[in-house]
Amino acid sequence: MTEPTDRTDATRTDDVKHMKWWGWGVEGVGFRHEDKPGFAPFVQKAIGLDLWAGERTERPDFSRLRVPASTASEEFVAVLSGIVGAGNTVVDDLSRVVHTYGKSLRDLVRIRAGEIARSPDVIVYPADEAEVQSIIDASVEADAVIIPFGGGSNIAGSLEPHMDESRVVVSLDLGRLNRVLEIDPDSGLARVQAGALGPDLEAQLNRDGWTMGHFPDSFTHSTLGGWVATRSSGMQSDKYGDIADIVKGLRVVRAGGVLVIRAVPSASTGPSVREMVVGSEGRLGVITEVTVQVHRLPEKRAIHAYFFKNLDHGLAAMQKIAESDVSPSVTRISDAHETAFSLATSKESKGIQKKAQTGLMAYLKRRGWSLDEMCLSFIGFEGDEAHVKRQKSLVDRIVRKHHGIGVGKGPGALYDQKKFDTPYIRDFLLDRGAAGDVSETAGPWSKLRGIHAAVYEAADRAYEKIGHAGWAMSHMSHSYHSGACLYFTFAFVFGDDPLGEYDIVKRAIQQAFIDAGGTISHHHGVGLEHAPWLEEDISTEGVAIMSGLFGAADPGGNFNPRKIVV
Amino acid sequence: MTEPTDRTDATRTDDVKHMKWWGWGVEGVGFRHEDKPGFAPFVQKAIGLDLWAGERTERPDFSRLRVPASTASEEFVAVLSGIVGAGNTVVDDLSRVVHTYGKSLRDLVRIRAGEIARSPDVIVYPADEAEVQSIIDASVEADAVIIPFGGGSNIAGSLEPHMDESRVVVSLDLGRLNRVLEIDPDSGLARVQAGALGPDLEAQLNRDGWTMGHFPDSFTHSTLGGWVATRSSGMQSDKYGDIADIVKGLRVVRAGGVLVIRAVPSASTGPSVREMVVGSEGRLGVITEVTVQVHRLPEKRAIHAYFFKNLDHGLAAMQKIAESDVSPSVTRISDAHETAFSLATSKESKGIQKKAQTGLMAYLKRRGWSLDEMCLSFIGFEGDEAHVKRQKSLVDRIVRKHHGIGVGKGPGALYDQKKFDTPYIRDFLLDRGAAGDVSETAGPWSKLRGIHAAVYEAADRAYEKIGHAGWAMSHMSHSYHSGACLYFTFAFVFGDDPLGEYDIVKRAIQQAFIDAGGTISHHHGVGLEHAPWLEEDISTEGVAIMSGLFGAADPGGNFNPRKIVV
Repeated sequence: MTEPTDRTDATRTDDVKHMKWWGWGVEGVGFRHEDKPGFAPFVQKAIGLDLWAGERTERPDFSRLRVPASTASEEFVAVLSGIVGAGNTVVDDLSRVVHTYGKSLRDLVRIRAGEIARSPDVIVYPADEAEVQSIIDASVEADAVIIPFGGGSNIAGSLEPHMDESRVVVSLDLGRLNRVLEIDPDSGLARVQAGALGPDLEAQLNRDGWTMGHFPDSFTHSTLGGWVATRSSGMQSDKYGDIADIVKGLRVVRAGGVLVIRAVPSASTGPSVREMVVGSEGRLGVITEVTVQVHRLPEKRAIHAYFFKNLDHGLAAMQKIAESDVSPSVTRISDAHETAFSLATSKESKGIQKKAQTGLMAYLKRRGWSLDEMCLSFIGFEGDEAHVKRQKSLVDRIVRKHHGIGVGKGPGALYDQKKFDTPYIRDFLLDRGAAGDVSETAGPWSKLRGIHAAVYEAADRAYEKIGHAGWAMSHMSHSYHSGACLYFTFAFVFGDDPLGEYDIVKRAIQQAFIDAGGTISHHHGVGLEHAPWLEEDISTEGVAIMSGLFGAADPGGNFNPRKIVV
Repeated sequence: MTEPTDRTDATRTDDVKHMKWWGWGVEGVGFRHEDKPGFAPFVQKAIGLDLWAGERTERPDFSRLRVPASTASEEFVAVLSGIVGAGNTVVDDLSRVVHTYGKSLRDLVRIRAGEIARSPDVIVYPADEAEVQSIIDASVEADAVIIPFGGGSNIAGSLEPHMDESRVVVSLDLGRLNRVLEIDPDSGLARVQAGALGPDLEAQLNRDGWTMGHFPDSFTHSTLGGWVATRSSGMQSDKYGDIADIVKGLRVVRAGGVLVIRAVPSASTGPSVREMVVGSEGRLGVITEVTVQVHRLPEKRAIHAYFFKNLDHGLAAMQKIAESDVSPSVTRISDAHETAFSLATSKESKGIQKKAQTGLMAYLKRRGWSLDEMCLSFIGFEGDEAHVKRQKSLVDRIVRKHHGIGVGKGPGALYDQKKFDTPYIRDFLLDRGAAGDVSETAGPWSKLRGIHAAVYEAADRAYEKIGHAGWAMSHMSHSYHSGACLYFTFAFVFGDDPLGEYDIVKRAIQQAFIDAGGTISHHHGVGLEHAPWLEEDISTEGVAIMSGLFGAADPGGNFNPRKIVV
């Protein structure tokens, strides 16, 4: 066992940031609709909820939670404290609640209802990799369960201990391992500790003129290690790649020692162990360090907005862009429902801006567009001045061929500012008795329209079944040569059994993905939430191979057991 | 068991193409030096071999080979024949020799020496996936070993049965599964059978205006399934990606059934099973079908040649290109040794061409270049006219900044024509008592010069040890944002113990890769040849994870056992 460290350069456990225990983000920040005049009428129409009625559930009260007692023995806690120092091992109820769930709708509903069947028994905050190794060795020796914890933003149920878990559960919080250790400027490779939150990571890189370019919706509250463990994508993945592309090297602490994948640009050294760790959700060990591809901050960066007459035209344009010589940083198109939502969540525009908007809508109507069908698209460009200019002109040509209209950088700048605020809306809705959640898939271009239609149909049937008005909307968020990601948001006012009703809707959507040729998860991982469809997605033999991998790598089932595959 | 098929649309076993048993390519084709006036003096100087002396070993004589008798029982052969039809199961010596080795230098030396410790006992040619399943089920039931066979071009020892293998060895030749089954034009996805050889695959795609864009040096004699099984790269991978990027979907026959990875553009469904199959060299099952990314044939395609004053300038330019907004299809630069080799293997130029060449060399000398240091580079462009023009002008600007000089499309066109002929030189050298082979690595840009120097130093020490003059040369063949592949060719005149001497040189080079921060294989796989360095490359824990995967997926060790990891 290593000596307790007294590292003054490591972040203190007290300074590790966590989201509020009952919802997304930080205390005091939330979504408000009062400054968005279109929002309340929109919600009224979509799911029959009257925001002005002002009925709100009470703010969850921590003192009413019944948190199961920690089963960690004093001896075991002492062993952990011996490794990390006493102040860096905690067993208090608030900490244990914060480390119980991620932030899925299921998690939020349960935490608001005070449903905590099983909490981690002890949370430990190592200062370095050597301490992680000692924690793991001690935990495996004690036959405890180890669940790595980053930002806690997971929405696939990857973090919660199994309710039947009889062993001691250790939540291994990586929050103190949050630094960029080294940048290799020739190769654009940065060695970064796995616990770095998005903003901290980018700030450290930006300081030296670099960016990693990974911006998932959860960016503010998620970590590099979490992105890797769940195969995350970001809104600029069209340019920078999914996390699987960005990760070049890895250090993963396992019971036997440290798995080290050196940062080489490409290798043919058998099945890719790097690609086994990516998406492994803690089952192969604890990721402590990642060597990532970084890029020089672009000279210029712009997100342009376009309108298309309908989704068919818009998707066709996105497909042409993907197969062309153009390489935008963002390609995104909302369907008509989501476009209406976006317009409804805009703040009231005034003066010239309002006139321009009204003028545009009138013009589109004259051209025969139906405002119920039109779709808003964002396309981003990055690089030097000349590159951006040329890319934009090539995209404009494709857009014109598909009868789209460019409306400038205003809406894109707005989108860019508020892109990380969307998750707050779920808490806003829950406060008012409504559920909102997301499900995303990816499929080949040839199947995207079919998937889109199938999901709407499945959601409608599910809403009919639960007997509540429901809403669905969607955008295409990442594109590839062969296809794209479709990201769905759904919402409904729930009755007496919120999770029962949620299950019906969520299941219908996931099954529609599979049946229409999509995958069950494009960038949120599998966890517990998507596991029921894994076999239909990657086949029985695929699951057998994955189970075999986990079983051989972790014969005692100590590493985040029963996630991804049971 | 399925009924013997009578499929008139499947290729007949007699029509499956194989390379000659004793060397590369087809009978009657070989390298000749008589029309290349610079070659003999070059070889004389490099490794002290006098090509005009005309001493040649005798052409290997099949009748002198001692082929171990097949250990397959008549009953077992009858079972296989019952599956595929009698004419599609063969046990003759020539077929068994053809299926014993790949085409590594070690393989060529052994086959010429008549060294065949262990041959496959029976070769079977299934017509479809159902037959592959039946063969596998029957073989596993009989506890036989299954080694999939594509084009037989492997140079890492991935194909040979272990000399101590006591079980019956089945070589499963995919040669009849050689068709493009379906193209999804919207998504650019083609379903292709795994046994398709490069030229057959491209011809079928080209007919409909598509290309897969995968052109390894072995292209003429290697198959799609082989490329996937060994993590191949091609010379246009800068644009089209390595095979790991090109493969979107897979069908792999295993003892339990077919592993099906559906073609979705990206997914976060746990550790990537797709990336476990890529590079698995037969250990996870037999790949029967691959869904690959295809692209429209480009409007324009050009390879331009450039000269750089020395390797440092050239590599710096390649690095700048890789981190810029430019996306060429080929970036390649030969070091000074390989540049000299290229010039020496050119046919005699005449008239105006000769004058131009002489003029260029004189001009470079006047500029202070040393012809012993200058490096030849090829950069390829593809796309529409405007794209190619713009890319070329951006590259030219970077080249100029690094004091490089463009010399037009002539050399590139020549390179493009003869690029698949290089492997024939090994047989040419072996006929004359010299060994030539290749080893390639990849590393970050910051380490490339170090790797290059370390390999030269290691090779020199090895040549000193074996007491023969030796030669090494290198080119950078693929570039990525974070680094590139360095591809080394080495040659020497051997003494009494060709393989013993070869081992000393090859080992020195592989160890230099590791010690200087490169990987042990960029695109040739692991097999037996590179396995000794795997642990140093991907760490002890990495090998443990991979072993665990193989052990769990194939508990009986029936699938190409002891390859990659023992």
